[in-house]
Amino acid sequence: MSVKTTNEIDIVKVAQSKIASVDFDNLAFGATFTDHMFVCDFREGKWHKPQIKPYEPFLLDPSAKVFHYGQAIFEGMKAYKDEAGDVWLFRPDQNLDRLNKSAVRMAMPEIPEDIFMSGLHQLIDLEREWVKFGLGNTLYIRPFMIAIGSGVVAAPSTQFRFMIILSPAKAYYSGEVKVLIAEHYSRAANGGIGAAKAAGNYSAQFYPTKLANEKGFQQVIWTDDATHTKLEEAGTMNVFFRINDTLLTAPTSERILDGVTRKSLIALAKREGIKVEERSVLVSELIEGMKDGSLKEIFGAGTAAVVNPIVGFSYQDTYYELPKMADSFALQLKDKLTKIQYKLAEDTFGWTVKI
Amino acid sequence: MSVKTTNEIDIVKVAQSKIASVDFDNLAFGATFTDHMFVCDFREGKWHKPQIKPYEPFLLDPSAKVFHYGQAIFEGMKAYKDEAGDVWLFRPDQNLDRLNKSAVRMAMPEIPEDIFMSGLHQLIDLEREWVKFGLGNTLYIRPFMIAIGSGVVAAPSTQFRFMIILSPAKAYYSGEVKVLIAEHYSRAANGGIGAAKAAGNYSAQFYPTKLANEKGFQQVIWTDDATHTKLEEAGTMNVFFRINDTLLTAPTSERILDGVTRKSLIALAKREGIKVEERSVLVSELIEGMKDGSLKEIFGAGTAAVVNPIVGFSYQDTYYELPKMADSFALQLKDKLTKIQYKLAEDTFGWTVKI
Ligand SMILES: Cc1ncc(COP(=O)(O)O)c(C=O)c1O
Ligand SMILES: Cc1ncc(COP(=O)(O)O)c(C=O)c1O
Repeated sequence: MSVKTTNEIDIVKVAQSKIASVDFDNLAFGATFTDHMFVCDFREGKWHKPQIKPYEPFLLDPSAKVFHYGQAIFEGMKAYKDEAGDVWLFRPDQNLDRLNKSAVRMAMPEIPEDIFMSGLHQLIDLEREWVKFGLGNTLYIRPFMIAIGSGVVAAPSTQFRFMIILSPAKAYYSGEVKVLIAEHYSRAANGGIGAAKAAGNYSAQFYPTKLANEKGFQQVIWTDDATHTKLEEAGTMNVFFRINDTLLTAPTSERILDGVTRKSLIALAKREGIKVEERSVLVSELIEGMKDGSLKEIFGAGTAAVVNPIVGFSYQDTYYELPKMADSFALQLKDKLTKIQYKLAEDTFGWTVKI
Repeated sequence: MSVKTTNEIDIVKVAQSKIASVDFDNLAFGATFTDHMFVCDFREGKWHKPQIKPYEPFLLDPSAKVFHYGQAIFEGMKAYKDEAGDVWLFRPDQNLDRLNKSAVRMAMPEIPEDIFMSGLHQLIDLEREWVKFGLGNTLYIRPFMIAIGSGVVAAPSTQFRFMIILSPAKAYYSGEVKVLIAEHYSRAANGGIGAAKAAGNYSAQFYPTKLANEKGFQQVIWTDDATHTKLEEAGTMNVFFRINDTLLTAPTSERILDGVTRKSLIALAKREGIKVEERSVLVSELIEGMKDGSLKEIFGAGTAAVVNPIVGFSYQDTYYELPKMADSFALQLKDKLTKIQYKLAEDTFGWTVKI
């Protein structure tokens, strides 16, 4: 190992990279991590000196607040390699902004921009070899913050750890995606934490999703918890609906995550002259749209899955199969977005940031 | 340290207890832990051999599911010492039952009764000296389960750790408790995880509770998220309202935790001939009750706080001060309950269990 300090980050490198042992053609999503991680602790009211060091387990007290009260937030981003071998981030400012919104809602300290951005850049710079060239190959980036203070009293921690870990990835989902529309379970409450990327939001979905899986559906589309009539989002994706040639998606709210993919697709669709409406979409509109043939597509949108076409949905025990579209909005928009991400098309929006 | 195996639990004792260094007259709630902890891991589809060992930090991978998806549940119980020096649990079957309900809702494995009960008994047996005699002195017991499997993919873990840690405690709250009735934020969704003692439910309350604290209120009374008209529960307490001589409390539901204290107080009140109604209580009833003088008391009920009289509440920026009751239901019921817990009154319900 060699220790050096760059831009206020202490860097301890591994003696030997494990990259040679990784089969980049057979990567399970989120299961393999790079050689190093970024760590920065908050205590006594301030962020301390950040470190980049070998990826490894760390010690926590059994009474750590993250274990008992779920005070934890995260982000999900990706890095892409272009033909020239350069590595790019996609809209990292949006992730920082959302991370800090999540932090406020979860009574956690905000991360200063310089710690977040320099951590991201220097860590990925060190791990360039882990980002492989070729459409679909990415380095999945997981910034997260956990409450590490100890004590079993239900009150916010005063000590936190912010980390960034990196995982080389291929596509998130494989195979056809059928969804179940939620009729009983729900993801978020009004006045709750649905708009935060808070850890507890995800485990809350595991059981209802497992029930859906058992019925042959890969995902649940959540509806509002009061009436179950409004379509909201999926597990880790916002959801778009195409009725005739209009693209519809729920407006962001305190129940719905403000997805970076969602807002980017909306911008791209508008640029392409596609009519986009951000408004509550009712389950009844889907059923009507199936009956009169106006419902053409449903797709999920998120960093992990990029764009995920949905082949059909179930509601009130009836399965509705969507038409097969030759030139779907889903694939058109996915193509436009990934070309920008991989620097294969001009980035007129200024979304990409070079490492 | 000495290693021995009792009833299928491996026991490793500390060389030297730290009890002599503990100031039992000045204990912050949940901050001091006993010498040992109980640990049992679940992997490859089954629970492995449990251990009692020195209380100490443990290693987790940065990608552990508990950090990212909040897959974690807990319980809160207490042990009490009677005049003869015997140590007693209060309705531990109820906590096991609730823990396992939480486990199902959070897609976690249920704990077998023998692991839970023998862990509890043997650990507390070893730590008897930590349970001090005298009303108010207790040993707070924190059983909890966390997802320790690694991987940043939003799906349930396959590896879990169940632990029990113990913390000597005095009373939970001190001073007068004023509450704010929630008008915007909420704790649980219909079809959500409110009825589970899931970690994420607690951190979700930190920020709104902090806002209430800043206004001079110690707790928030949560209302239903759809209309904010129905009174539900407080941070870690169920809530009772006395209107004239009737005791009211919200029925348990998928939004409300089924409190052991709540159900015990209901049983005690009924035995005392107090009329109890488990039904939705409206905020408007409180306001009416303040106007016509029929609202006599509000109190919280939970293991940590036992019974917590509330002196006043705020709603729509108006503060309502409750009357001072000479012989309040809160104090009568608290007295009855604690006398059973400390074996100072006959336990006709069969609630207490000797260690
Ligand atoms: C609940 C939820 N909705 C939507 C998304 C999509 O957001 P983004 O496009 O920023 O990845 C995510 C994140 O992956 C999510 O967790
Ligand atoms: C949300 C919530 N409500 C109510 C209670 C009271 O339950 P119990 O009486 O079992 O401690 C608790 C637990 O302490 C709780 O966390």
